[in-house]
Amino acid sequence: MPLKKTSLLLPAIITITGVLMLCSGTFAQSKPHMVRMAKLVIDSAQLDNYRAALKEEIETSVKVEPGVLTLYAVYEKNNPTHVTILEIYADTAAYHAHLQTPHFIKYKTGTKDMVKSLELVESVPISPGMKIKD
Amino acid sequence: MPLKKTSLLLPAIITITGVLMLCSGTFAQSKPHMVRMAKLVIDSAQLDNYRAALKEEIETSVKVEPGVLTLYAVYEKNNPTHVTILEIYADTAAYHAHLQTPHFIKYKTGTKDMVKSLELVESVPISPGMKIKD
Repeated sequence: MPLKKTSLLLPAIITITGVLMLCSGTFAQSKPHMVRMAKLVIDSAQLDNYRAALKEEIETSVKVEPGVLTLYAVYEKNNPTHVTILEIYADTAAYHAHLQTPHFIKYKTGTKDMVKSLELVESVPISPGMKIKD
Repeated sequence: MPLKKTSLLLPAIITITGVLMLCSGTFAQSKPHMVRMAKLVIDSAQLDNYRAALKEEIETSVKVEPGVLTLYAVYEKNNPTHVTILEIYADTAAYHAHLQTPHFIKYKTGTKDMVKSLELVESVPISPGMKIKD
């Protein structure tokens, strides 16, 4: 029995709408922020120099690179050689661009003999819209 | 030789201004933000429930408590039972007030059987004014 053309119209519209919704969802999720924790151990004899170099690098990056959303760095009060940086980039392209900037290269080369170990931990935010209030 | 009253006026103004500047600086530094990393290990069988409870708690806290500046929570992509929360409170008073809120108590009691370990690491920010951009 041949199908009527009109009987196909509504299912077709529903299918197309569904595909478009899925696609937009996929695209939205295909470029989530890149979130990472960098865990470093610093040479205790060079702590002050390291902190000054890191401070300059993170403040410059967040100021001049739109895709660097934060580089929130702390050291542990009872273990000041242990530094953790919460890094949030708009996407991986923003991260790769960051690696090519003069301020990052200056930091990386300038601190290479201060950093005893570096671990990069890819992470997933539990509340992605979270900010730091004033 | 007796001092003229007018000759004392300018030094007095400079001294008072200096004292006021020092005091305002002292007060500003006497109440730094309280910054901490909470490191948790979660029961793998209860990960989804834990994340939902934590998400509700951190979003409510930052929304309704002016002194809770951020609770930025992540889990490790390759080790999803490992959760880290960057906690920033305006001061220790804001933190102690936070512990008494109904949403924190609900989270703490509701997740006590999900949390296998909890380590609280007092921390010092390297760039205290750092924010998370949009």
